[in-house]
Amino acid sequence: MEEKSNKTLQQSGSIHVTKSIRCIVKLGGAAITCKNELETINEENLKTVSSHLRQSMIAGSSSGRVLGMDWSKKSGESDISYTVDDFEDHSVVESSPFIVVHGAGSFGHFQASKSGVHKGGWNRPLVKAGFVATRISVTNLNLEIVRALAREGIPSIGMSPFACGWSTCERNIASADLSVVAKAIESGLVPVLHGDAVLDNRLDCTILSGDVIISHLAAHLRPDYVVFLTDVLGVYDRPPSEPNSILLREIAVAEDGSWSIVRPTLQDLNNQVKTTVAAHDTTGGMMTKIAEAAVIAKLGINVYIVKAATSHALRALSGELKGDIPDDWLGTLIRFASK
Amino acid sequence: MEEKSNKTLQQSGSIHVTKSIRCIVKLGGAAITCKNELETINEENLKTVSSHLRQSMIAGSSSGRVLGMDWSKKSGESDISYTVDDFEDHSVVESSPFIVVHGAGSFGHFQASKSGVHKGGWNRPLVKAGFVATRISVTNLNLEIVRALAREGIPSIGMSPFACGWSTCERNIASADLSVVAKAIESGLVPVLHGDAVLDNRLDCTILSGDVIISHLAAHLRPDYVVFLTDVLGVYDRPPSEPNSILLREIAVAEDGSWSIVRPTLQDLNNQVKTTVAAHDTTGGMMTKIAEAAVIAKLGINVYIVKAATSHALRALSGELKGDIPDDWLGTLIRFASK
Repeated sequence: MEEKSNKTLQQSGSIHVTKSIRCIVKLGGAAITCKNELETINEENLKTVSSHLRQSMIAGSSSGRVLGMDWSKKSGESDISYTVDDFEDHSVVESSPFIVVHGAGSFGHFQASKSGVHKGGWNRPLVKAGFVATRISVTNLNLEIVRALAREGIPSIGMSPFACGWSTCERNIASADLSVVAKAIESGLVPVLHGDAVLDNRLDCTILSGDVIISHLAAHLRPDYVVFLTDVLGVYDRPPSEPNSILLREIAVAEDGSWSIVRPTLQDLNNQVKTTVAAHDTTGGMMTKIAEAAVIAKLGINVYIVKAATSHALRALSGELKGDIPDDWLGTLIRFASK
Repeated sequence: MEEKSNKTLQQSGSIHVTKSIRCIVKLGGAAITCKNELETINEENLKTVSSHLRQSMIAGSSSGRVLGMDWSKKSGESDISYTVDDFEDHSVVESSPFIVVHGAGSFGHFQASKSGVHKGGWNRPLVKAGFVATRISVTNLNLEIVRALAREGIPSIGMSPFACGWSTCERNIASADLSVVAKAIESGLVPVLHGDAVLDNRLDCTILSGDVIISHLAAHLRPDYVVFLTDVLGVYDRPPSEPNSILLREIAVAEDGSWSIVRPTLQDLNNQVKTTVAAHDTTGGMMTKIAEAAVIAKLGINVYIVKAATSHALRALSGELKGDIPDDWLGTLIRFASK
């Protein structure tokens, strides 16, 4: 992948991003929360994901003591787990520029769907209440993720899209001031954004998904690569719960946005499945996933869709999959089809 | 106080605030947290303050059922306290435009002071860690305050100054995009800001206090009045814990920024105290409090400093103290000295 540096981002005036963004990571809601348990974090996964992010961002950090940055009161105790001395004899550790975006999972979803926030309309009291309730739930999750990352020594900073001035017009992004994200990156901090309830010029309000945020950030900040951490190994030809479902290993996206499966080859697929890939879209949502990733891949940015908290995820995050994908890596690469 | 409407705010382009801001409220850290207990909210005070704010913002809301907007999972349970039906047969309730800003109290203070965030300097690992830890603590408090307000049916929206793009230059505000605050107000939402750790152009980072935020908001959004909710009745001539300390009831600020005590009269004061008022500043911080309020009063905006969760606070918040201050109101009014 080409080296990028000293880029200039033109957005609401002129913003200079002198640091090249290495990676934008999506923490899928299903991977970090227990999807069927209301407002419950998958603590084990979140801890492993945070550790993987630390190892990927901070060189040489897989050994040695982690200097935690969440100095909150410990639950049920009256003191704080931290000593100043740990930091005083520590040299400055630079983390490479990552941006984290997370979904909602079992946070926010209930509040948003019950009230119809995505449809908008302040004239309905339920919508306004749902808007407030949804933001409370997703910012609660955001805080917990920021804390989990901070405990691993990642200088994570929660940044709610609503507060950062992201708004939409009929659900398409109307404004998104990236200057604060850029400044945080310049300062060596790791912005943590999330799917959020936002204001919409036409509908009053709606839901802005984490995936749309990622596409926007990728288009404007041009990271080296993008990783989607999910609860399955990658993108399958049909719902992964179905028998004989096949993991699509590599998908190439053409200039015109069309895409084709490079691996497994069509021959391999035909040998095993009788129906066409597209026929399964309505149940598996595969087309949607690929379409979102394809927009980013078209920019020349590799997108890795991989199961959170696995060795495959760590390999994708650390950037070791730059060339050909090794056979023992399980996940889906969606890339631009170079001529 | 003069009627204001259809004002235009010029800030980062042109922002139209068609709704006149009625009140900016400061929830003092000492009033809503237990100052000597690490990261502990004064639940009783916070509940009363939230109820007072509801009664002040939403006309006729002192009677009737409150429709809560915090639909989070109840602690220790797996369900959510909420039914859609409550909202469906409810008409739209307009809350009058308030902005809430809160201090840190026992949240954030420990993390900030131990690491020296206010002094800045990314070259010290402790400062960066403290910056992250401070933001975690203050955003945690912000979330809890937003939830307390939402439970009272106030459409509260957490807005962290850092994420909203507030930054400083040698501790003075360098940028503060008020467009998101303005848009939230237009939408009938109640922005809840807070003292925060922010980026500083010269120092790398520092602490932006809630009081500085209030002054800035007041200058640009011109509310009808400003209320500071504290843990004492108002401003005294010396630390209120000292015997014979006297509550200053009314202070007038002149065009040149100088101020004088209108009530009690100097004669009353002299009869009771032997030393001058100013002599007590170093211990009581009275001068600092007055100086902050004086900046706002000079704009022609009345500032009420009053004890949180008292009937005096409710009277100040509801705007009933527009004319002469009644004798049975305990608190401090700081106002512009009209010629």
